[in-house]
Order: sequence, then C-alpha cells, then structure tokens
Amino acid sequence: MTSYRAPTQDMQFVLHEVLNVTESDTPGYADLDRDFTAAILDEAGKIARDVLAPLNASGDVEGCRLENGVVYTPKGFREAFAALKAGGWPAIDCDPEYGGQGLPYIMSCATGEMFVSANMAFNMYQGLTHGAYSAIHAHGTAEQKATYLPKMVSCDWTGTMNLTEPHCGTDLGMMRTKAEPQADGSYRLTGQKIFISAGDHDLAENVIHLVLAKAPGGGEGTKGISLFIVPKFLVNADGSLGPRNAVSVGKVEEKMGIHGNATCVMNYDGATGWLLGDLHKGMRAMFTMMNEARLSVGLQGYAVAEAAYQNALAYAKDRLQGRAVTGAENPDGPADPLIVHPDVRRNLMSQRAFVEGARMLTFWGASLVDQAKLGGDNAADGLISLLTPVIKGFLTDKGFEASVNAQQVFGGHGYIEEQGMSQFARDARITMIYEGANGVQALDLVGRKLAAEGGKPILAFFEMVKGFIRDSEGAGDADLKAQFLEPLKAASKDLQAAGMYFMAEGAKNPNAALAGSYDFMHLFGHVCLGLMWARAARAAQAALAAGTGDAEFYRAKLATGRYYMARELPATALHLQRIRTGAEPVMSSEVAWL
Amino acid sequence: MTSYRAPTQDMQFVLHEVLNVTESDTPGYADLDRDFTAAILDEAGKIARDVLAPLNASGDVEGCRLENGVVYTPKGFREAFAALKAGGWPAIDCDPEYGGQGLPYIMSCATGEMFVSANMAFNMYQGLTHGAYSAIHAHGTAEQKATYLPKMVSCDWTGTMNLTEPHCGTDLGMMRTKAEPQADGSYRLTGQKIFISAGDHDLAENVIHLVLAKAPGGGEGTKGISLFIVPKFLVNADGSLGPRNAVSVGKVEEKMGIHGNATCVMNYDGATGWLLGDLHKGMRAMFTMMNEARLSVGLQGYAVAEAAYQNALAYAKDRLQGRAVTGAENPDGPADPLIVHPDVRRNLMSQRAFVEGARMLTFWGASLVDQAKLGGDNAADGLISLLTPVIKGFLTDKGFEASVNAQQVFGGHGYIEEQGMSQFARDARITMIYEGANGVQALDLVGRKLAAEGGKPILAFFEMVKGFIRDSEGAGDADLKAQFLEPLKAASKDLQAAGMYFMAEGAKNPNAALAGSYDFMHLFGHVCLGLMWARAARAAQAALAAGTGDAEFYRAKLATGRYYMARELPATALHLQRIRTGAEPVMSSEVAWL
Repeated sequence: MTSYRAPTQDMQFVLHEVLNVTESDTPGYADLDRDFTAAILDEAGKIARDVLAPLNASGDVEGCRLENGVVYTPKGFREAFAALKAGGWPAIDCDPEYGGQGLPYIMSCATGEMFVSANMAFNMYQGLTHGAYSAIHAHGTAEQKATYLPKMVSCDWTGTMNLTEPHCGTDLGMMRTKAEPQADGSYRLTGQKIFISAGDHDLAENVIHLVLAKAPGGGEGTKGISLFIVPKFLVNADGSLGPRNAVSVGKVEEKMGIHGNATCVMNYDGATGWLLGDLHKGMRAMFTMMNEARLSVGLQGYAVAEAAYQNALAYAKDRLQGRAVTGAENPDGPADPLIVHPDVRRNLMSQRAFVEGARMLTFWGASLVDQAKLGGDNAADGLISLLTPVIKGFLTDKGFEASVNAQQVFGGHGYIEEQGMSQFARDARITMIYEGANGVQALDLVGRKLAAEGGKPILAFFEMVKGFIRDSEGAGDADLKAQFLEPLKAASKDLQAAGMYFMAEGAKNPNAALAGSYDFMHLFGHVCLGLMWARAARAAQAALAAGTGDAEFYRAKLATGRYYMARELPATALHLQRIRTGAEPVMSSEVAWL
Repeated sequence: MTSYRAPTQDMQFVLHEVLNVTESDTPGYADLDRDFTAAILDEAGKIARDVLAPLNASGDVEGCRLENGVVYTPKGFREAFAALKAGGWPAIDCDPEYGGQGLPYIMSCATGEMFVSANMAFNMYQGLTHGAYSAIHAHGTAEQKATYLPKMVSCDWTGTMNLTEPHCGTDLGMMRTKAEPQADGSYRLTGQKIFISAGDHDLAENVIHLVLAKAPGGGEGTKGISLFIVPKFLVNADGSLGPRNAVSVGKVEEKMGIHGNATCVMNYDGATGWLLGDLHKGMRAMFTMMNEARLSVGLQGYAVAEAAYQNALAYAKDRLQGRAVTGAENPDGPADPLIVHPDVRRNLMSQRAFVEGARMLTFWGASLVDQAKLGGDNAADGLISLLTPVIKGFLTDKGFEASVNAQQVFGGHGYIEEQGMSQFARDARITMIYEGANGVQALDLVGRKLAAEGGKPILAFFEMVKGFIRDSEGAGDADLKAQFLEPLKAASKDLQAAGMYFMAEGAKNPNAALAGSYDFMHLFGHVCLGLMWARAARAAQAALAAGTGDAEFYRAKLATGRYYMARELPATALHLQRIRTGAEPVMSSEVAWL
C-alpha cells in the first residue's frame, strides 16, 4: 500500500523564497504571508493524506460502473467528496460573488497538487468543474452565471468539457454534433461525445455539460462551432432541478488508469442546451477552459510523480538488498538499504530533481496567470500563453517517466498491482494524452506560440533569463556561478539557437520546424527547470548564509539542484542537435515504403 | 483490436544480407539458405498471426485464475499450446537426442520474436521451459536428462525458474528456502518463492521447477546455494507420473500486464527435489538459465514494440485528422491521415528505427551464442557475455518507450483498453524488471563484464567496429561515409571515452563508475544499434546498386537508418557527459536529508 504526505515545507520554500509572493504587486499576493499559506497548506495536506489518499488504490481496483443508466463511483468517494466540499476546497480561488473564497490561483495550484498526488482520479471531478466554472464565468450572461456558478463553486453541481467525437479529437472541424435553434432561444443538441471525464457520477445533484456543437450558418470547419451549456437536469426558474435532459451515458470506458474517474460516452438525443458566449465562437470560449485545463494537466504530471517518488524513497530506505560497494553501511543487518547503491540513488535523484523543479515551474506559471488575470499584466499573459504547452507537454512526459522510474525502484514488487506503484504509472500515462496530446502541444508551441505577438513573449523570456543570470552573478558565489548559472546560460543559448533555426528554416520548409517541435518543447522545458533550479539554489544559498531555517533542507535543495544542472540540463544540446537535422530524417521515407 | 503480421522480409534481410548466415563457419549455418529460412519463418508467422495473436487481448482481459489449487489459463490457451507443440516450435533449437530439431539458436530467436509479438504472455510458458531445459541439459546427470528432457522438449512438461523470495530478489545470499538431504539422495525443500512465471497452469501434464535453495554446509551468502529439480508430480522409474509433490500455488498475482501468464507464489512444504549440478554451486547452474533468459527478455522488449509499431503505423495511415502543413495530401477526404504530420512521423520513425535495429542486434547476439556453443569460439562467448546486459537493459527500456510511443499515436483511443495499445505498454513494462532489473544489468555490465578477461571482449568490440568502418569506407559511397560511418565513429569514441573514465576514476572511487553505469548501458546500446544500422545501410546500398530485390524495401531501410544515425545515435554524447559528472551529483546529498 502506498502512502502520501503533503510536501508543505517545499511548497512554502517555493512560495516565499523562490517566488517571494508577498513582495509581488499582484493583487491579493500581499496577503499570502507565511503563516497564512502554512495554515492553508496544512489543512489541505491533512485532507489529502487522511481522506483522499486512502481511497486511491481502492478506487483503482473498483472503478466506476454504469447500472441502469446510473454511474456509480467507487466506495468512499461520496463521503470524501462531501468532505472536500465542506472544507470549501473546490471554491478556493473562485469569485466571492458566487460563493468562492477569492484566493489567487497559485493557492489553488498548491492545494490542487496535494489532492492530485493523493488521488488523481478523484480530484478530476472537482477539476473539470473548475474548468467549466471558468468558462461560464468568462463567457456567460448574468443570468447564466447566477443560475450555475454558485452551485458549481460549491460543487453541488459538477461540470464537464465535451469536445471529442469518435472520428475526431484534435481536428474539431470535423465535428458532427448538431445544435438546432428553438423558438424559446434554446438549442436542441444531437450527437455523440466520447472520452468525457467525470461525464456522470453519483457525487452531485446535477452535471453541467459544456458541449461543442455546430449550429446552422457558421460555415465549414471550426468556424461553425459554438459552445453550449447542457445540464443533466434542467434548472427551473427558481434554481430547483427540473426534468431530466435528453443526455445519457452510453458507456463507461475501461481504461489503462484513472479508474476512479468515470470516462463516459455521452449521447445527446435532442438535449436542451443554451448558447454560452457568442454564436460560432465556441472554440474561443472553449479555450478558456482548455488553457486552464492544460496547466492543470501539467500539474497532474508532476503531482502523481511526487506521490510515486515519496513511496520509492521510503522503499529504498527500508528495503535491504546487497551491500554498498564502498563498504557495508548497515553492518548489523543482513544487507544495506537499496538507497546506498549509486544507480538507485541516481534514479531517486532524477525523480526528485524533476518533481521539485516542476513544482517551481508550475507555481511560477500560476503566478503569471494571477499577474495576468488579477493584475491585468499583458506581458505575463503572453508569457504564460507561451509556457502553457511546455508545462503541459514537458511536465507530463517527465512525470510519467518519473512515475515509471519510481515503480522501477520496487523491482518485481513494482509490477504487482497490490503494491500500488503500477497505478501511479498507469494514472500518469493519461496526462500525456488528454487536453491535447503532447505532440499537439509541441505543434501549438512551435506553430503558434513562438511567433505570437511577433515573438515578444519568447524574447521576454530570454531577457528574463539573462537578467537573472546577470543579477545573480553579482549576488551569488563561485559555486552558484559554476554549478548553476553557467549551465543555465549554455542551455538558454541552445534554446535561442533552436529558435533561430526555426526562423531560418521554418519559412522555407515548415516540415523542418515541425519535425523538431517535440524536441523544442523538451528543450524549452529543460531551460525552464534550469532557471527554476538556479533560482532555488540562489535562495538556498542565501538561507544557509543567513543561518535561517532548516539547514538540511537547503543542503538537500542544493544537492538536488546540482543533480539537475549536471545530469539533466545538458539534454538541451541533444535536442538542439536533433532539431538541426530538420525534416530529412523524419520525412524522407515515402509513406508507401513504410 | 490489434493485429499482427510477421516481418519475414525484414528477418530474411537480417539473416542473409546483414549477417550472411550461410557464409558463416558456425556449424549448422551453411544449411540456413534463403528458401529454408523462408519456409520456417512463413510457417511460424502463420501460427503467430492466426493462432497466438487472436488470443492476446482476450488473455489480457481474462487473465489466469486459481481455483481449489488449480491454475487455469485464459480461454483458448490450451488449444493454442497444443498447436504450438504440434508444430514442434518449442523444440526448434533443442538437442535431437531428446527430440529437438537441432537448428541453431538464431532460428529460435527469429520464430520466438514472432510468438512474443503475437502474444507475449502465452509464449512465456514455452520460454521458461526452454530455460529450464537448457539448465538440465548443461548440468543434469544422464538419468536426469533422460527423465526430463524429452518431455520438456515436447512441452508435455513445462519448466520454471525459482529464485526470488519475498525479502530478496537480487540479493540471493539472503535466501531462506532450505534443502535437507534425505537418505535416498533426494532433498526435502521448504520455503516460499514468489514471482514464478508460468508457475502453474493447465497447459501441461507436469511442471518441472528449478529451485534455488540452501543445503547444509555451504556457508553464508550465495556460496551456500544449490539448484534443485522439483517436479509438480513425481516421476516414476518408467517415466510415468507418480504422486503429487509437496509444492503448491499460494496465489496468482494481479499484475500490471502479462495477465495471460500465471505469476505464482510457490510454497514448498517439504517437497522432494534432486540436486541439479554440483552441491553449493547453484548460482553457476542458474546462470545458464539466466543468461539465456536475459537475451530472451531483450528480445521481448523489441518484439512487443514491433507489434505496437505495426498497429500504430496502420492507425496513422488510416485515421484522418488535420491537414499537412505543406498542403492537403488527401484533398478529397475530410482530412489527411495522421502520418502526414511531421511529429507523428517522427514518433513512428523512432519506433521503427529502434525495432529494426534491435532485431539486428538480437539476431547478431544469437549468432554469437551459436558461434560460442556450436563452434566453441571463446571470443564469441566473451563478446555475448559482455553484450547480454546491454541487450537486456537497453532493448527493454527502449522497447517500453517505443510501445508507449505507439500508444501515443492513438491519442485518447490509446488509453482505452478495448483498443489494445495499452496492453503492449503494460506487457512491455515487465521486461525492464524481471531477469534482473535494468539497474542490475547496468551494474553487471560496468561492475563485472567490462573488466572480464582483462577487458578483452570490450577491446575486441572496438576493434570490430574499427575494422568495419575501415572496410566500409573502401566499399561504400560518400553518403555511407557521411551518414553512417562518421556518426558511428563518433559514437564509438564516446563509448571508449566512457570506458577510460571508468578505468581512471573507478579504481579511486567505485561510486563514480556505478553512478554512470546506467548511462553506460545506454551509451553501449546506441553504439551497438549504430553499428547494426551501418551494416544494414551498407547491405541496402549494395542491393540497390545491384538492382536486386525490392527497391522500396531498401530505400525505406536507408531512410530509417538515416533517422537512427541523425536523431538517436547522438545521445551517446549526452550519456558520456553524464558519466563524466561522476558520483558527486548522485551521491552528495546525505540520505538523512532526503
């Protein structure tokens, strides 16, 4: 059986020593002092550890089932969901006008990480609801907001996103679901949607589906798509629930993982829906949800890896097997613990360096969202828009890899379901796929985000890295320079060189840029984590110099950072080399030959 | 539903144009002419496609079950096993004295690849039997051979390997299973073994367990270990089955994958066994099985990836989604097939380049086994001993990666169990773990094999690479030199430099070598595949120049090789760089800080 303990000390470090949240001019950040955030993180950590984590394995084994049209979640999920709601956790960053607590998004990320680590499948019920809340909040009429948001903020009603159809996922222009306008201003929706996470369940009174469909007159492709609100139960004028809508669950899918979440085929058979946002502008409205969802999925990638790492570390300290090559370290026992072996340590350090780096990147990303949303900062908006595919794609690829590596520490025991390590790998696997498969993230990054605003965000990123290095060379010592700043400089140069290559070659031959898009996403991800680790190292050095806080924590932080800079970050050179090979190696075989 | 088609054309290419088997002086190889091998491969391919592959998904869903002490395999396995036996496939490379067909091991590899691709879990029943056969063949008395081998060659009886116990896997010195000598020369075995693949089932009349246990007087640690033959049913003097032995199945494990194979907890409660080989020399005898098993597991790694790749390729050609960035390629359809997208192509090429390279490496490895065993070639024996951990570790890591990448091509559909792509990833995952987790392979490679015979095998490997390059520079054209030989030369230099680093640093600080062991295993694997691809390219160029055979096949071969050399092989530089960072990044944090 696996266990989970919230990494509150590290989260406090990121908030207060890396990001220095209270010194930020983002509205609301001044209130996030150490005591305040500690109180929130401690409470969330307790729920994650005591309520959610104990249901993770059982939810995986039991899964969800469809009986007579009703979807049942695993045993204990209803009670846990009630506890989550009672604590107000789903509402943490929601608008106080609708019952939310109005905290910045960064606190939703921090607490959300804990809930995902403890039980990813469970947390998706509230996660999807938050996405739907955001879309209605951004695009809904006053009446729609009043009708739906209070119930969604409290999670009395949950939400879903309905995009995919059997024959199209990424290419939504091929969509077939139809919306026919009715005399009363509503629409009748007909069609089938698949892979609908949290599509139906027994945790809430109502499910509010946000559904993409084609309404007449919008033209071909994605231009004809609109977004609709389709509640499972129609809502009466007084807010009470009316009759059941013509939407039903066709099937609950059997999946590789996240068994505790009901992934549904949803059938719309003339279901009543209401337009959300502008007619034929559904893609734009949906992207409000998608961008938020992509950051959340990046978070899932490393949050699952955090849980897997904690268990792998504990096992490596506990399991006795073999002797240290440099002499017995547990001479009175029959063998030394696994962790004495350099290759086991390498594996653990790779997980740790990734997870801690990913946490910093995600929290930083959340702070950019807050700067953009709460502070109206356009530069922050451009930057997080650029970073979103990197956070989604890189953190989920590496999060899965780290979860697999954690499983590996257990040897044969890792392959046995009872042990729980397989579940982390199986659950993490979906994060590379949903909300836009990672290849699509790479395409979005290279095909759209890199050139957005004439390249302003990427240039701002490089300026920031340069500025940080310049500033730190003065502030830090020779070790900081040699171990952190120089490697970061080299990696950042690789990223710039890759960008130059795309500019030079991409115009002549778009395939040359797209063949390197996946490598670019990883190259960028490494530079981001390198930057984060350099910032962390500077903060840790400062704390050690000042003699404040937990010295062992800071020493481990520096050691973990050195691992990342020495052994992971140099991957940027390989990615650059691959990018520069262009389209030929990838595209030179005729399809017919394959 | 997935499907499988045996890659006989590529196997023929490897046998006859890369390895030129009939020109080898290995005994038996002269008979392996094109027509003969084609006939064997075609027949095996049909069984794989028509009998084994159709049971792959159903075996995964149904799994094995234990009822009243009896283990049942999934529906259809009994009939398929009978068909496999009827074709004589398990006996293909076994000793004719015991009913085998006496073909070289390389033909067992080729046909075995097909059976694994089609249904890995199923094929393990005969695979484990082959390992046990080999151990008895090498170490058994004349009577033991006469008693067991004919029945095991025919697979009327199957075999197992019993090493692991709950508290020890890699560190067998901690073993607790006891063997007490009896007056009649037999032993009474008492203890529990876990993770016993094919431990029990309903496919054969008897199961012959090879069990490691401690007999009195052998001293501490692995020195006290002996190997025993423990049949499920005792065998009467006339060869008929006697009473049930005191060995029983405690449990069939629930695993991440290979559900069709019964992974058993085996309880020995005073079971009768007979010593196999010398007393207290059980580890040596067991390694006869282990080395063979490790090559087979390397084969499993890429064989599963082959099946996954075939399905990903078919899906990418069929599934319409999006438009080529260079203009519609299927203008009359609603969208272009996935394969037009450079990043999808990159993913497919990475799988293909790995699988085809791995096939060459494995067949080459098999030819070394044959040279050593049939031809008594000590140099070949040293080389395959060196390459075994590379083949096991590198091909299974990359095979899992390729299977995950194949799953990724399917997007959300890849995560749904019904589609079958998840199974490939889940099945492939075990290959990184069993028969020595890959970290243990890396340790074996760097800690033992590299320095074996004073480094003779590794030096012979470098000489061979150099000789091939020298020879090919004369024979090939400028493209061969630039695209294949130069990259191979660079990669080989990286490998040599890593070896030098270990020699220089390893003596002073063994942790410095071991911290880089995993990277060294991958570095070595890349150089091996680079060598294979250079050999393949030379052969393909020759065939194109001669105008013989299927030109499209050779053009695809060259394109796939260029992909490998340009985009995969450069990873050697990164591995070398990591190795040179030594122990510090890995070991510098105190365990207590983590």
